[in-house]
Amino acid sequence: MTSSPLVAAVVGASGYAGGELLRLLLAHPSFEVGPLAAGSSAGKRVTELHPHLTALADRTFIGTDVDALIEADVVFLALPHGESGAIAAALPAGTLVVDLGADHRLADAEAWSRYYGGNHAGTWTYGMPELGDQRAEIATARRIANPGCYPTGVILGLAPLLAAGLVEPDDVVVVAASGTTGAGRKPSDALLASTVMGQLSAYKVGGTHQHTPEIEQALTGAAGERVTVSFTPLLAPMPRGILATTTARLADGVTTEVLHEALHAAYAGEPFVTVLPSGSWPQTGATLGANSVHLQVAADRHSGRAVVVSAIDNLTKGAAGQALQNANIALGLPETAGLTAIGVAP
Amino acid sequence: MTSSPLVAAVVGASGYAGGELLRLLLAHPSFEVGPLAAGSSAGKRVTELHPHLTALADRTFIGTDVDALIEADVVFLALPHGESGAIAAALPAGTLVVDLGADHRLADAEAWSRYYGGNHAGTWTYGMPELGDQRAEIATARRIANPGCYPTGVILGLAPLLAAGLVEPDDVVVVAASGTTGAGRKPSDALLASTVMGQLSAYKVGGTHQHTPEIEQALTGAAGERVTVSFTPLLAPMPRGILATTTARLADGVTTEVLHEALHAAYAGEPFVTVLPSGSWPQTGATLGANSVHLQVAADRHSGRAVVVSAIDNLTKGAAGQALQNANIALGLPETAGLTAIGVAP
Amino acid sequence: MTSSPLVAAVVGASGYAGGELLRLLLAHPSFEVGPLAAGSSAGKRVTELHPHLTALADRTFIGTDVDALIEADVVFLALPHGESGAIAAALPAGTLVVDLGADHRLADAEAWSRYYGGNHAGTWTYGMPELGDQRAEIATARRIANPGCYPTGVILGLAPLLAAGLVEPDDVVVVAASGTTGAGRKPSDALLASTVMGQLSAYKVGGTHQHTPEIEQALTGAAGERVTVSFTPLLAPMPRGILATTTARLADGVTTEVLHEALHAAYAGEPFVTVLPSGSWPQTGATLGANSVHLQVAADRHSGRAVVVSAIDNLTKGAAGQALQNANIALGLPETAGLTAIGVAP
Amino acid sequence: MTSSPLVAAVVGASGYAGGELLRLLLAHPSFEVGPLAAGSSAGKRVTELHPHLTALADRTFIGTDVDALIEADVVFLALPHGESGAIAAALPAGTLVVDLGADHRLADAEAWSRYYGGNHAGTWTYGMPELGDQRAEIATARRIANPGCYPTGVILGLAPLLAAGLVEPDDVVVVAASGTTGAGRKPSDALLASTVMGQLSAYKVGGTHQHTPEIEQALTGAAGERVTVSFTPLLAPMPRGILATTTARLADGVTTEVLHEALHAAYAGEPFVTVLPSGSWPQTGATLGANSVHLQVAADRHSGRAVVVSAIDNLTKGAAGQALQNANIALGLPETAGLTAIGVAP
Repeated sequence: MTSSPLVAAVVGASGYAGGELLRLLLAHPSFEVGPLAAGSSAGKRVTELHPHLTALADRTFIGTDVDALIEADVVFLALPHGESGAIAAALPAGTLVVDLGADHRLADAEAWSRYYGGNHAGTWTYGMPELGDQRAEIATARRIANPGCYPTGVILGLAPLLAAGLVEPDDVVVVAASGTTGAGRKPSDALLASTVMGQLSAYKVGGTHQHTPEIEQALTGAAGERVTVSFTPLLAPMPRGILATTTARLADGVTTEVLHEALHAAYAGEPFVTVLPSGSWPQTGATLGANSVHLQVAADRHSGRAVVVSAIDNLTKGAAGQALQNANIALGLPETAGLTAIGVAP
Repeated sequence: MTSSPLVAAVVGASGYAGGELLRLLLAHPSFEVGPLAAGSSAGKRVTELHPHLTALADRTFIGTDVDALIEADVVFLALPHGESGAIAAALPAGTLVVDLGADHRLADAEAWSRYYGGNHAGTWTYGMPELGDQRAEIATARRIANPGCYPTGVILGLAPLLAAGLVEPDDVVVVAASGTTGAGRKPSDALLASTVMGQLSAYKVGGTHQHTPEIEQALTGAAGERVTVSFTPLLAPMPRGILATTTARLADGVTTEVLHEALHAAYAGEPFVTVLPSGSWPQTGATLGANSVHLQVAADRHSGRAVVVSAIDNLTKGAAGQALQNANIALGLPETAGLTAIGVAP
Repeated sequence: MTSSPLVAAVVGASGYAGGELLRLLLAHPSFEVGPLAAGSSAGKRVTELHPHLTALADRTFIGTDVDALIEADVVFLALPHGESGAIAAALPAGTLVVDLGADHRLADAEAWSRYYGGNHAGTWTYGMPELGDQRAEIATARRIANPGCYPTGVILGLAPLLAAGLVEPDDVVVVAASGTTGAGRKPSDALLASTVMGQLSAYKVGGTHQHTPEIEQALTGAAGERVTVSFTPLLAPMPRGILATTTARLADGVTTEVLHEALHAAYAGEPFVTVLPSGSWPQTGATLGANSVHLQVAADRHSGRAVVVSAIDNLTKGAAGQALQNANIALGLPETAGLTAIGVAP
Repeated sequence: MTSSPLVAAVVGASGYAGGELLRLLLAHPSFEVGPLAAGSSAGKRVTELHPHLTALADRTFIGTDVDALIEADVVFLALPHGESGAIAAALPAGTLVVDLGADHRLADAEAWSRYYGGNHAGTWTYGMPELGDQRAEIATARRIANPGCYPTGVILGLAPLLAAGLVEPDDVVVVAASGTTGAGRKPSDALLASTVMGQLSAYKVGGTHQHTPEIEQALTGAAGERVTVSFTPLLAPMPRGILATTTARLADGVTTEVLHEALHAAYAGEPFVTVLPSGSWPQTGATLGANSVHLQVAADRHSGRAVVVSAIDNLTKGAAGQALQNANIALGLPETAGLTAIGVAP
């Protein structure tokens, strides 16, 4: 334990990722929950929006005021895309800032504008510790761009296979289904329980989802050559979880065993990535509330494709958990502090 | 309608597809519900297993006895794979038999043995009226192999694009999620509500699902050349519905409009296939209890792939509804008799 | 059927009850779908809000304009409470009007004001055909107040027991759980899928729910003396369905058999009420999309209470189905026309 | 922290309560996971049945062998009712045994036989720390009967009101809905996802549920006079959670404020019981995975009844969490060690 706790501020604390971050911070041995900003919910009790956070029953949200954040040791930004840049720019350079939004993930300003619209805020250290050499970069960064929810599962599943040359980079096909918290908390007809329960639907089909360039950027880095992805997102009738099915053309002679071994080798010793035993396939439920990724892979020689399936909790490893993992690393705390790899199931 | 009703027998009437067939038969203007056979449930009241079928409150299941089926005008077989062959062989050649199981779908005996095990029972007319010239064949057939649930949505979505040369046949990738009734009614840990609710999982990954050769067979027929499919099935937390995402490499210069028009042209006048307006994507809920397929398509020029999304109710258009549609055609009844294209939603 | 179809207009056609009414009207042998009014959705395509109603793909909603309704043979009002009165008053006295809202259900203007606020619009014939002598009144009425969703299941379950003096009127306790469509279609945080899925909650506890006086009014009528009800509503993670548990103190010596027989006697010959066989308890799923009520009862001698459980689909028997049943009766059509007692299950 | 960890054995570790106990033990600072017994699953990998418990990937279940349990500091029995007695009798008197089953909860042997069948195993200290003076008894007990899931929420909600004389003891009515894990893990048609999803059902209606005498026993203790309960259980489409609605006749002049204050007074300082702010009603989702009870109450003067609503996670505060809380107390550990009051939501 640290002698005096570190102060964590959360901006966008009324949303789902913000709420998950608060849940995790409350159980963290080194942090205390500092200012909680929530634009349109300023003045409301925290438990009015997050009834599970009874430990914060006497707290209310404040407005998004940079001055209130100045004393924080770490500021987590959990805002809609396009809103992080201005706040981040106003914070002291020495303050650790972890942006759970998309604003600072893409290196390609043109891709940013095409998929998100508006001006590119800049490029920060990509906060995926298990990817390549990212952990070392994160350790010294003060500005960390936390990965998107879909990219997390997809990238961690396919990057080692691309890096090892076991699959081809030029025709990756991803179909990934997300629980509803991935779509945010703004009420709409499409997100009503009556609409969603008992059914599946597709949305942003045809390469238009804004996570496409993020996936391609990271996988291109892993492959060392241009990766192109066909990405189709689905909305599933569950609050949390992403199950991603990622396929890529197999290199010659590659077997299931070779693929499996490549994943094992890539993630040996990783506390939050589990390559499942042969014969077991990921289920999102096993990762509920946990900062973990479950992976499995097969070589389908008939169709000539590798199929990787990954499961995460979109709010934990796909957002708040990974953000906290990044903060732990950047602040020199144990990487697993306040995080678990064990889901709440069933 | 007909002066005296036609007698419909159902073998395997205790399962989910059998129950759906009974639901539809009860509303059909020309059929009366004849013998209801259910091996291990013989002697039980129908409403004990199908509490919604109150109109059959005074009926009980009988054992699977061919003699009891001899007077039926149509026999529907809704049995586990491998069990249809012997019963079908014992029925009069003139009796219309619709097999909802897989036994008579595949022309390739070797593929049958590889995916299902055991001996191939033979090849019957494939009962997908909207596919190519199948409707005419169905009209004169006395033995109809009803399509599988996954194949129905996938084939109807992609066949017109292959037939028109708009996509390439050699690297089709399908990821399709099914509700739990698709996995049958036999109790198991994997199908318990506690296991399934709130989560998604993958199964039979890597080209091992038995619907793969059926999809390839039909699409090869449509394309006029060998089609290869990578097929990944998912289990979704909903009782009914299949959402299939099917992608194939685009031929040169093909746009979303061209793809959309090809689907429209293929299904103009079809009562049970709806190509959605541009901008709308299929949701399984809109097809609940209906014999309909909802389709939408996009050309993703960035990745070079067409993406077709199809939604069906696996028990209706994916099983019992299509079986009844086939029986209507084969018996000279109006094709839509006893069927609706309108789902129960939300 | 009729030589030329009757024209049915729906006001409030964009909501869930309105959509269910359209689904039923499309399958009705005697009606054609006339003007579809939907205040704030005027101008939108019907399938934009009801993607399952593909048969109405070329229809759009109109504004709520009384002139457009004047030619209709029946006008269904599916509006928020407080909005029916003015429209109804402007329609010709000879036009059949069925109000799915609450405005005309209560005889007690003071109770109306206390539970709903505002002025009482008046009292129409209560449209619950299976209750006492209501069917005869409905047959000649031109203004019918369609019952509320919670009241339907509760009243039909308990009224015969009160009428027969088998239970006491003065301490009825009801706990009833509804699917989310019962809460309407207006987007709010409380009705988001993320909020609702995987959990149960209570609301309007302590006798504040506006269906309380409606239940008491009908049960008082059945009992012939004042009935008092403690009513607690729950929100359940399902789109449709109400399961109501109603308990009342047993009169001396009353057994389960006596209670069961009283329900049987009350509903003999009723096409839409099923008293389940002994040992079976209602499940809402068995009534999905059907106009049916499933009932079961037990005498708990230990606690001295009768327990009645009823299941309905809140949108069908609890709203649109019962409205259509009432219209059938009032227009001299077969009572069951366009309606089924068989749910879509599982 | 203890210098060397305490060994916790779990018998019945393959079930849902057993799995939840393992999840909690893995995060506990003072326990190590000792022998894991699971009769019919002996020899299976733990993660085969509990895929979320990746930290136990190298562990397998053993058979139920008393010798293997002899060294444990605490033995948790998570067995079907009727199976605890023999095992408990064979364990050393000094070993702490917490029985999550029903065998040792009832003081009345006749009630045991009537509701459970077979012989009564005996009566142990009732492990509900927040009830009356139980905490002190638990602290010195070596044999603790962990409460049932339904009783936990119901008793904690009503006991303070009975103890204070604010409600009458003789006509308590409880309707409580449970998620499916409460029904255990044995596969059956009634517990299949296809059966359960999207619907509610009632079971064991009419006072036959075996938790009835347990509720009455504890409430009678609190009231100081005989309490009689009408208890109706429902099965809800969610994996976890119990929402209990408990009503009792109000004593003269009692208001909502008085009831609310009585709950507040009873649970001031309790780490795991939260009386919600006025206007908020419990939702089970807020307690998911947490050892907490959320309570709210209203006086319904119209019907003369108090209505208490309580929410718990049936596997945590309703089973494994409370068991661990009891073990903490009995072993002199901090009562909250390894437990959280904060649910995983949404």
